[in-house]
Amino acid sequence: MSTRFGKDLTRRGFISKVGQGLAAVNVAGTLLSDARAQLRVPEPPGKKLGWAIVGLGSLSINQILPAFSKCEKSKAVAFVSGHPDKAKKLALRYGVNAKNIYNYENYDTIRDNPEVDIIYIVLPNAMHAEYTVRGFQAGKHVLSEKPMANTPAECQQMIDAANKADRKLMVAYRCQYEPYNREAIRIARAKELGPTQMILADAGFPMGDPTQWRCNRKLAGGGSLMDIGIYALNASRFLTGEEPKEVNAMMYSTPGDPRFKEVEEHVTFQLRFPSGILSNCSSSYGYFHQSHYRVMGTEGRLELDPATWYSGLRMWIERGNVIDSIDLPVVDHFATEMDHMSDCVMQNKTPLTPGEEGLRDLKIITAIYEAAQSGKTVTL
Amino acid sequence: MSTRFGKDLTRRGFISKVGQGLAAVNVAGTLLSDARAQLRVPEPPGKKLGWAIVGLGSLSINQILPAFSKCEKSKAVAFVSGHPDKAKKLALRYGVNAKNIYNYENYDTIRDNPEVDIIYIVLPNAMHAEYTVRGFQAGKHVLSEKPMANTPAECQQMIDAANKADRKLMVAYRCQYEPYNREAIRIARAKELGPTQMILADAGFPMGDPTQWRCNRKLAGGGSLMDIGIYALNASRFLTGEEPKEVNAMMYSTPGDPRFKEVEEHVTFQLRFPSGILSNCSSSYGYFHQSHYRVMGTEGRLELDPATWYSGLRMWIERGNVIDSIDLPVVDHFATEMDHMSDCVMQNKTPLTPGEEGLRDLKIITAIYEAAQSGKTVTL
Repeated sequence: MSTRFGKDLTRRGFISKVGQGLAAVNVAGTLLSDARAQLRVPEPPGKKLGWAIVGLGSLSINQILPAFSKCEKSKAVAFVSGHPDKAKKLALRYGVNAKNIYNYENYDTIRDNPEVDIIYIVLPNAMHAEYTVRGFQAGKHVLSEKPMANTPAECQQMIDAANKADRKLMVAYRCQYEPYNREAIRIARAKELGPTQMILADAGFPMGDPTQWRCNRKLAGGGSLMDIGIYALNASRFLTGEEPKEVNAMMYSTPGDPRFKEVEEHVTFQLRFPSGILSNCSSSYGYFHQSHYRVMGTEGRLELDPATWYSGLRMWIERGNVIDSIDLPVVDHFATEMDHMSDCVMQNKTPLTPGEEGLRDLKIITAIYEAAQSGKTVTL
Repeated sequence: MSTRFGKDLTRRGFISKVGQGLAAVNVAGTLLSDARAQLRVPEPPGKKLGWAIVGLGSLSINQILPAFSKCEKSKAVAFVSGHPDKAKKLALRYGVNAKNIYNYENYDTIRDNPEVDIIYIVLPNAMHAEYTVRGFQAGKHVLSEKPMANTPAECQQMIDAANKADRKLMVAYRCQYEPYNREAIRIARAKELGPTQMILADAGFPMGDPTQWRCNRKLAGGGSLMDIGIYALNASRFLTGEEPKEVNAMMYSTPGDPRFKEVEEHVTFQLRFPSGILSNCSSSYGYFHQSHYRVMGTEGRLELDPATWYSGLRMWIERGNVIDSIDLPVVDHFATEMDHMSDCVMQNKTPLTPGEEGLRDLKIITAIYEAAQSGKTVTL
């Protein structure tokens, strides 16, 4: 009998295995070299590209701006905000030149600022397309937060604008850049648990203030699926390395709840992949916080819980009667993804999560909504 | 940040809390008195009813027969088997009188054996209905293994036969009789994690020998859903205390795999309950063993993993930033359910899981197959 707390439990991984032999070196070494190769983490010191942060909400303030201190190829040099006082305070804190503070009206003049190489769009979903396209028209490269936009058509506009401007477009799927999720991808695709049979992925949290933009359909494009269920969807795709061909779904929103007057609360959705893998996912703005996935192979299972939080990710692998807890290097997700983007710009490489990656998710999200509304399996 | 292994983790429950105060006494005391009241565990010593075991396969040999040593109201007094040598050996081991060994031809003469009060049907699914009906015609009470039968019509025949004979019919949903699952039911229905928003339940294991009856459609009635997915379905129902009104499903079986020529390998299914709760479930004969459910409330989550194994069940409750590991009394599932049945017979009470409980699952299973085949939501 295997248990998480029982005597069969062992802990493995980078930290605990250092110096314990070749196996440890192999595991960690493979991961690091793999990460270095795929994420192209530069050797310090390197040139730092200049970033403009568009939108100074809580994600920018609490995660993105602090992350620059851990970047090796990226520095914050400009802000775009509708709140000049907040922008000035943050400019002082992060050493951004006050002349590099823009608002949404004069945003396009950023074309004349050679300090800015890359624009990071951290706005409500409905604004991603417009501000991305304007960013490309200003000659800059663009990293857009997820979901990429409200509709596949908007995503396509963003891709077209990038192509026209010959600039890089990347979607901020930060989980694809950090070691736990990358190791899960490696294990699943290498069939180390046997061929993957099923993915089980769940993501949600209890939505707070009903007046925030995430509860506004026009700004958010949808509810929990757009905002947090996209993690379960994206994980299903990156763990399998396949694109789903069929979807089923159900939705439910608590009647009379002011948070869900315009956007959906709960979604359950199922994906069928070409190889036969099924994925069973949930998304919620109503249940207790959860960020979890399992890769079910024929010979074992891999679990990440939490799988997508900014920190504190945990991984277990169960094979036979043993559950291993896997420790991996902890990185700042935002610093890692921003440095990847900078590196792609410097080296003229395509990002790991280009615009097409965001477009695929939006097409599937659209199909999930259609399946839930029609009560029929939707073919992609 | 809460983690299963981090410093925030605490262990609570019956064993670790003994002597630590009133809270512990309340938790354990409530559970035990609740279990005693609902399961009617008798005060020893009590009269033991005589049981006939029909079918001496691995479940009978490895689980059911050894369990009688832990029973307070039940004793094995007869066997019905197509293998007289095996039956004789087991009769010697368990002190069963050799004259009480029946075969499938003379089974009906068990009516003349006053030592036998209750018949436990441990046969392939397709034989449950016939041997249950014949058991009632012999004037005995019947406990049937799950799934109750291959079709709702067969389940109804069994219920009708019980009513006609005025005898008890119970379905062996052993999880509804053991403390971990009962405590999960109590917590969910008492809304201790806030109102339940979603149930996530998964059950499966890698099927072995393709020649066994479970891979034979005529005998098994179906594949993983009938055999193991029924645990996820039953859990969704007993945790919510509601009956689903809509189902979605997808199925997949590996082409060319001899195990899945006749029965399905993987099923994902979704249930919508009247209160709005959604349940997202999976079932498999192809993925690594898994027996897991989560109750997602608004203010916390409860996890059982494994949830349905014969022993070694583990429970966690996460609320705020703390994950508690819950220890509860360990019981023999089979002894507990058999004593419940004996007690119901002695006291002329309806079992906690009567025939109607098995019929409901079979109706839903039928709808799940229909939904998977049609690609449409099926209304129940």
